[in-house]
Amino acid sequence: MIYLDNAATTKMSKVAIEAMYPYLDEIYGNPSSLHTAGQQANEALTDARARIARLFGCEPREITFTSGGSEADNQAILTAARIGERAGKRHIISTAFEHHAVLHTLDKLAKSGFEVTLLDVHENGLITAEQVAEAIRPDTCLVTVMYANNEIGTIQPIAEIGAVCREKGVLFHTDAVQAAGHLHINVKEQNIDMLSLSAHKFHGPKGIGALYARKSIRLESLIEGGAQERGKRAGTENTPAIMGMAAALEAACANLDANAARMIALRDRLIAGLREISHAILNGDAVKRLPGNVSFCFEGIEGESLLLLLDDKGICASSGSACTSGSLDPSHVLLAIGRVHDIAHGSLRLTLSEETTEDEIDYTIAAVKDVVEYLRGISPIWRDLCSGKKEFIIK
Amino acid sequence: MIYLDNAATTKMSKVAIEAMYPYLDEIYGNPSSLHTAGQQANEALTDARARIARLFGCEPREITFTSGGSEADNQAILTAARIGERAGKRHIISTAFEHHAVLHTLDKLAKSGFEVTLLDVHENGLITAEQVAEAIRPDTCLVTVMYANNEIGTIQPIAEIGAVCREKGVLFHTDAVQAAGHLHINVKEQNIDMLSLSAHKFHGPKGIGALYARKSIRLESLIEGGAQERGKRAGTENTPAIMGMAAALEAACANLDANAARMIALRDRLIAGLREISHAILNGDAVKRLPGNVSFCFEGIEGESLLLLLDDKGICASSGSACTSGSLDPSHVLLAIGRVHDIAHGSLRLTLSEETTEDEIDYTIAAVKDVVEYLRGISPIWRDLCSGKKEFIIK
Repeated sequence: MIYLDNAATTKMSKVAIEAMYPYLDEIYGNPSSLHTAGQQANEALTDARARIARLFGCEPREITFTSGGSEADNQAILTAARIGERAGKRHIISTAFEHHAVLHTLDKLAKSGFEVTLLDVHENGLITAEQVAEAIRPDTCLVTVMYANNEIGTIQPIAEIGAVCREKGVLFHTDAVQAAGHLHINVKEQNIDMLSLSAHKFHGPKGIGALYARKSIRLESLIEGGAQERGKRAGTENTPAIMGMAAALEAACANLDANAARMIALRDRLIAGLREISHAILNGDAVKRLPGNVSFCFEGIEGESLLLLLDDKGICASSGSACTSGSLDPSHVLLAIGRVHDIAHGSLRLTLSEETTEDEIDYTIAAVKDVVEYLRGISPIWRDLCSGKKEFIIK
Repeated sequence: MIYLDNAATTKMSKVAIEAMYPYLDEIYGNPSSLHTAGQQANEALTDARARIARLFGCEPREITFTSGGSEADNQAILTAARIGERAGKRHIISTAFEHHAVLHTLDKLAKSGFEVTLLDVHENGLITAEQVAEAIRPDTCLVTVMYANNEIGTIQPIAEIGAVCREKGVLFHTDAVQAAGHLHINVKEQNIDMLSLSAHKFHGPKGIGALYARKSIRLESLIEGGAQERGKRAGTENTPAIMGMAAALEAACANLDANAARMIALRDRLIAGLREISHAILNGDAVKRLPGNVSFCFEGIEGESLLLLLDDKGICASSGSACTSGSLDPSHVLLAIGRVHDIAHGSLRLTLSEETTEDEIDYTIAAVKDVVEYLRGISPIWRDLCSGKKEFIIK
């Protein structure tokens, strides 16, 4: 099996599994318990928090463990909304191509009286700090812009946006679910006030994530109950998963540059190969994108059929986000960068890992070429395009 | 180490770890992905959901996976509140000794205009269905009563309360975090509309739980985002933990009666042994309690010192709930059953597992006797009590 869906989820690294295992077995105490078994678990928690904080350049107490990236996004945005509300500020700025964990939370706030400005995304999959600066109003309480897009992999100018927000005194949150463990992040240097991450996107376990929040920010609880996580996130701490996350993140960050260089070379090889297909277009900037992300639209085909036939050839791929698969609507991300419905339907996302090999890339190029050719051969739309009855959109 | 804090958390069973392991390693796909790796994970999820549903006598689609019991409690209560609101009903009935995941969620609702009636708990740690019936008003939208108390182990008359609620057309939620896997539960027969559970209380993994909600109830999302869990709980599903939970629950339910009989014998042996200590009182009904729960108050001592000295003797115990340890306030549960502050401070909870042995129980009885005697020997309060300067509360 060639797994090229690492933006959906990753295989856990051996180091992460090994870090997790003792806490699934022998060191099982509840970190809130005063006895030895509990204190062993509590020490592990303290250790993991410090190690994770170090990797983002923040203090341990600025890290709150959550059940994943979606929960962290929800909590960050609701926190900023409540802070804003108390100051009479009910305007939030975001982008049209955020993850649904952000967009749906904003929808909820919009229903309760918040005004949300979604910045237009340039065709290359980027927004600018200037757009943010222009959109900020006296009643803006939050700017939330994803670090790197989950479908098309484009990396936003986070430090520049952070600088604008800091200068204007507006809270800045970034959904870094796709970036953490893959890009260098330093929340202080980049003026990030809140940042969400999810372990299973960097070879850590599922069901665990974290929210960094600058210490001056008083987090709003999503889940009420016990006093865990300084009273901001109730529920017995998931020590095994937290240990797995810390180990996975350390491993990812330790090898970040070397891994990125290797993956960029493979990514660009894959992009070059797929560009040989006629009437195909790369989604998102060719350079300012995640080392492992390749996203294309092919005219005249259905993305879902493409996936299923690639799966038959042993390749795990995606048309966009796993979180919205099964939906018949085209990707909101692709629509945001200006792809029309017909084109957005013919999308393919291939996301590499550190383990991806050149042979796998070459096999995949050949397989995608074959499958696209086959699907076009049976496509009435393609026939209409070739006969001139319809006009090509992708030239 | 003698681990007698199984109400705080349990050691994972081998069967649960083994069920989890393949999903931490080889079967790592995102269940929302259409390719083979994703569909393998999705099939596991479907299987786990069906197995869990069967054990509670409900349909698979009535089970929503959450990150644990606290999240499930929060979601259940907010769901009922939103349903109530739409019908103009803003009154909720609960008890004074619920877990904080319930009480703090109710506090939040009370701040937003809900009226909350907390039923008095009888000194034996029980409430009655009649109390519930009397408290129900035309504007009552929810009754939420815990199945078994986490500190004193008393088991409430859930089926009777369910019958009252069903008759009066009021939603009934029960926090079954301490009961699931330990007591026979059938949500249909017991007229339970919503039920919360947490895997790590029955030898499953931490960070995973479930909310059963009758299919006519449209759950309110706590965490917005992707369309996982029928759109009611966003975030990539934690397949490994879900598989671990299903396996742990099946194992617990398969051996429930035999385990309960064994544990009740040991529990009663422990209770009999501790009753030999003077000025000591069992908290909660002696019969209607969890097979593994023993809770005592000892006059003239501090529970925290008792714990620390028991820990020195290799016994992991608790003064009450792990979720509130570190707090200087006495347990709200013990206050609810009428223990005064001084007495509530001298509490000890010992919670057994299926693995607890008779030798461990006998060692523990001797250890508690020694430590209580030692602490009383150095306690000025005890001196005052013995000299008659103060009067004994526990006769």
